[in-house]
Amino acid sequence: MAQLAANRVVIEAVSPEVDGGRFPAKAAIGDAFVVEADIFSDGHDKIDAALLIRRSDEAAWREVPMAFVDNDRWRGVAVAEATGRYVYTLIAWRDLFASWRDEVSKKHAAGVPVALELKEGLELVGRTLRENDDIGDADRTALRSLLNKLETTLEDGERLATLLSHDAGELMKRIGIRADLSRYAKELELLVERKLAAFGAWYELMPRSMSNDPQRHGTFDDVIAKLPYVRDLGFDVLYFPPIHPIGRTHRKGKNNSLTPGPDDPGSPYAIGSEDGGHDAIHPELGTFDDFARLVEAARAHDLEVALDFAIQCSPDHPWIKEHPEWFDWRPDGTIKFAENPPKKYEDIVNVGFSRDALPALWYALRDIVLFWVDKGVKIFRVDNPHTKPMPFWEWMIRDVQDRHPDVIFLAEAFTRPKRMKRLAKIGFTQSYSYFTWRNTKWDLTAYLNELTTTECRHTMRPNFFVNTPDINPYYLQTSGRPGFRVRLMLAATLAGNYGIYSGFELCEAGPIPGKEEYLNSEKYEIKAWDWDRPEHIRPDIRLLNQLRKEHAALQSFANITFYNAWNDNILYYGKATPAKDSFLLFAVNLDPHNIQEAHFEVPLWEFGLPDEATIGAHDLVTDAPFEWHGKIQHMRLDPHDRPYAIWQLNPAGRTS
Amino acid sequence: MAQLAANRVVIEAVSPEVDGGRFPAKAAIGDAFVVEADIFSDGHDKIDAALLIRRSDEAAWREVPMAFVDNDRWRGVAVAEATGRYVYTLIAWRDLFASWRDEVSKKHAAGVPVALELKEGLELVGRTLRENDDIGDADRTALRSLLNKLETTLEDGERLATLLSHDAGELMKRIGIRADLSRYAKELELLVERKLAAFGAWYELMPRSMSNDPQRHGTFDDVIAKLPYVRDLGFDVLYFPPIHPIGRTHRKGKNNSLTPGPDDPGSPYAIGSEDGGHDAIHPELGTFDDFARLVEAARAHDLEVALDFAIQCSPDHPWIKEHPEWFDWRPDGTIKFAENPPKKYEDIVNVGFSRDALPALWYALRDIVLFWVDKGVKIFRVDNPHTKPMPFWEWMIRDVQDRHPDVIFLAEAFTRPKRMKRLAKIGFTQSYSYFTWRNTKWDLTAYLNELTTTECRHTMRPNFFVNTPDINPYYLQTSGRPGFRVRLMLAATLAGNYGIYSGFELCEAGPIPGKEEYLNSEKYEIKAWDWDRPEHIRPDIRLLNQLRKEHAALQSFANITFYNAWNDNILYYGKATPAKDSFLLFAVNLDPHNIQEAHFEVPLWEFGLPDEATIGAHDLVTDAPFEWHGKIQHMRLDPHDRPYAIWQLNPAGRTS
Repeated sequence: MAQLAANRVVIEAVSPEVDGGRFPAKAAIGDAFVVEADIFSDGHDKIDAALLIRRSDEAAWREVPMAFVDNDRWRGVAVAEATGRYVYTLIAWRDLFASWRDEVSKKHAAGVPVALELKEGLELVGRTLRENDDIGDADRTALRSLLNKLETTLEDGERLATLLSHDAGELMKRIGIRADLSRYAKELELLVERKLAAFGAWYELMPRSMSNDPQRHGTFDDVIAKLPYVRDLGFDVLYFPPIHPIGRTHRKGKNNSLTPGPDDPGSPYAIGSEDGGHDAIHPELGTFDDFARLVEAARAHDLEVALDFAIQCSPDHPWIKEHPEWFDWRPDGTIKFAENPPKKYEDIVNVGFSRDALPALWYALRDIVLFWVDKGVKIFRVDNPHTKPMPFWEWMIRDVQDRHPDVIFLAEAFTRPKRMKRLAKIGFTQSYSYFTWRNTKWDLTAYLNELTTTECRHTMRPNFFVNTPDINPYYLQTSGRPGFRVRLMLAATLAGNYGIYSGFELCEAGPIPGKEEYLNSEKYEIKAWDWDRPEHIRPDIRLLNQLRKEHAALQSFANITFYNAWNDNILYYGKATPAKDSFLLFAVNLDPHNIQEAHFEVPLWEFGLPDEATIGAHDLVTDAPFEWHGKIQHMRLDPHDRPYAIWQLNPAGRTS
Repeated sequence: MAQLAANRVVIEAVSPEVDGGRFPAKAAIGDAFVVEADIFSDGHDKIDAALLIRRSDEAAWREVPMAFVDNDRWRGVAVAEATGRYVYTLIAWRDLFASWRDEVSKKHAAGVPVALELKEGLELVGRTLRENDDIGDADRTALRSLLNKLETTLEDGERLATLLSHDAGELMKRIGIRADLSRYAKELELLVERKLAAFGAWYELMPRSMSNDPQRHGTFDDVIAKLPYVRDLGFDVLYFPPIHPIGRTHRKGKNNSLTPGPDDPGSPYAIGSEDGGHDAIHPELGTFDDFARLVEAARAHDLEVALDFAIQCSPDHPWIKEHPEWFDWRPDGTIKFAENPPKKYEDIVNVGFSRDALPALWYALRDIVLFWVDKGVKIFRVDNPHTKPMPFWEWMIRDVQDRHPDVIFLAEAFTRPKRMKRLAKIGFTQSYSYFTWRNTKWDLTAYLNELTTTECRHTMRPNFFVNTPDINPYYLQTSGRPGFRVRLMLAATLAGNYGIYSGFELCEAGPIPGKEEYLNSEKYEIKAWDWDRPEHIRPDIRLLNQLRKEHAALQSFANITFYNAWNDNILYYGKATPAKDSFLLFAVNLDPHNIQEAHFEVPLWEFGLPDEATIGAHDLVTDAPFEWHGKIQHMRLDPHDRPYAIWQLNPAGRTS
């Protein structure tokens, strides 16, 4: 029954607690890791609580004090200091001395005699000294001194003042008896990853199109020559679609045709030929030495190379002969080609993950990832993970990260919301998102609120790609250059991770009519780009990537608040650090065709300022300081001039 | 790794799953127990799922098919057939034959040749026969016959028709191979209680005021004489405040004074005197034989007696001498009297639940309950449970219910919301609520939505008392008779359990000025009531209790929907059974002083009817059939005539 009597102080509704503790919550280095819980007891006693956290491979807990928030909610904040797996739980207890102080203060204030209560207070201090064996030397000395003072004081008023003093309160909070110490029944997991897991700008390009000559297959050396361009734009990650040998059987021709010419290079997603499979390099791109030079050169340009991990095979992939048991064969001796209705991929077949393929295939796939990690690649964009078994990913990612905690996996899971969220829970570092199809104020607000306020915020880090080789968004097909600036601005400021696929900066949007696909897509042919097209938006990209690096408020994801701008075409939001020392406002005209104006609210209340206050601000686009006088202001955004505004609030510094 | 590869079909977000499975969900006999979960797999295969449920003391699972709802959500419904503890979990699997049918149907419809697919379908049927050992004889015969027909059919079109037939589909759904069978990791608990746990009307009275003579202390025999009155009103439970000996020390006088006269009876909550404690009866009420006759007589009137379980003691309680270790003594040798700030209870002291009182006091309290159960009492209203340790209640209630599953505990926990909800989770059958202070349309709607749609609906059954000896609501102090009818109507139709404290039916509302308390409260004196005061509202009570018994829609709690009536003083809502064969509408004028009118919507859409349809209805107050023509109707509620309306919808039966 002593066991039953435990947990008199209730600890429940702990957050984060992903799926009841089934999955770890995630944080990136430097994040404030906020843990909240409902904590309460019976009766009227004061309680106190603490967050316990430790590295999962260490035994010693660190204790972080929790503070009461409201409505029985308590909060503790630990800073994620180093990469790795952590364990956390909560403790809470009845604080007898705090309860005593509370009651006596009230009675004393009401003029009720407290002589008896004083004796009880003295007894509590004495009992603490007797019963708490876990007091440091300095505190023990202070406690003895407190007790001595109380025992030698003859005057009740003085005793009362001593017991109610700030110092006595702090001392007793620190070392007081933790009556009915309760401990949350679960130990929950936290995964702390490197900063690039949560915050990075991606640039995607097709290496074979980097020759600037549609007749010549680009090489890794061509990509090396392109690095200064990418670096100048301020990106962090340079991502390539598959670089492996491309199959011949059922090779696709231009525009996904089934009738390729002899020189058509085929889709890089048709992986595998007589030249090798997932652990080989397409010969026309270069050698492993060339690749090593590219990885090194990228690093010298502050860029990290990301590769595609696409599990499917061309019918020419060596595995089909070497491991027929990894594939599902049909009665006619063929393997079914891949489908993602309504899309058909005649040039690839899928492996089967169960039955005879288990476990050899799982190990082989894991080893492919480890192979490329060994070549210096720590970031993988994973093609269509939602068509492979979830248990495979959970095992594989954990196994790789146990060896290499800095490996990042981005899930290309354009699938139903719950599947997308599950992939984040089972280990994917980042996820593609629905951002590409969220264009209106209502849609963007609802989607961002879902991503940043519901439980998925603890595990899912969306990567807002503005376009991909597979997605030429309808919005951009008709928006012209202003729309590219709008979508860039949204992606770069709404999400921690965002990306563009090359051509976007040139405002390329030529579609296959009626489809969300690029005409003459690089997926099926070698392209040469005019990188200096006059309509390019490189200055916008450069500015936004620079602001992202300079302003801490832009380096978190869930710290967004939507504010009022009275125009349905203007999205207006703010991002701030917890201490509000970095506080930015963003306004975007979502209408790429027309000037839009709006009155809007400067969130003076966030700084405790009255509606008529003056606040210092800085226009981060024009780099000009100014002041706002009063809460209601007006903006005008001309898509052909500049469809967005970015302001930094500076409540302390008035400009004058 | 085989272990890791399990659970390819994901089962998550199970509901109910109270605090991650820490507590059982609750149902009452006859309830449809609805279990939902997000269930999905990778890829495009069809899946299927089932709810498994069994009595916790039996080994065999019952399998209930689940159905797809929307957005990866699945639902299964089991009927709670018998009292007891149940265990439930979920299974799900990839349905290979359904996937095959889906793909082949689409291809066939699109004119794609399916000869190869037909072979695969045939193979699937054959494999089912070979690999599934768990097929009943009839199904095995049917499967053999299906296979035989397919193998002897030469014509592909006929084969296709056979494989796509309804019968083949049903057969294969039933016995098809459950590929990648996944099972939810937890087995969750369900507590099924008797119907009175969830649905009952309570009448509270002070036995000592039943003599109809303020000079004579009422007896159990006086209560017996009162039973026909209570029965006539249609109540189910007859509840008494404590019936134990009342202490003398610091006894309270009239109106809670500290200076009682020698004949003042004292508060029945000051339990214990030289005549005994919690297991004794106040001598002036009668003997144990009298009490036994009362319990029996009540049963004969279809009434069940409920007692108060108030753990505090008068300073004269025998326990104080017998078990001084159960109390917390102060340095001056006294025990602190009870406080519930700002209320003071000078005539009672509290036991201490920990240290030396554990476990003896816990057993003693449990034995008090068992003692009264033995006397025929199965319902306990528990005084202030939130001031006693939660672990005590969790242990005690479970221990009592393991012996007597039909015992009901009502928590008088007027405390903060999370504490109130926790008490429901740890075992209290019912709970007092904030209903007493919810008077406006907004407040009532918000509160009912919270109670019926958030997680607490699985555990907390509010009992909507319109008044109590401690609460003379401000609303009723100024509303006059119309307000009593309003509050009665709300309580009786919004909640499964509701109650009145005697005097309410007489529209008694004389307050201590400025306080929410009754003047000359029965808590401190013997009263005599004029039971036939002309303003009594017995006909309303009789009608409402009768309708509650007659209409299944009124016997559930969470089945409420608020509909549009365009007047903030008119609350308008509906309750229906899942099959909508019982569908009632309620309208209440919350303003007790003025006539209120409103246009309102008849929810024709609930029956799939167009806005201009005619629907049969029945006025349940006047017992008159009528018809509504069209969705928008008008109502007028005169508080001095009748402040509410109750209509039954009858879409099938037009009146004409």
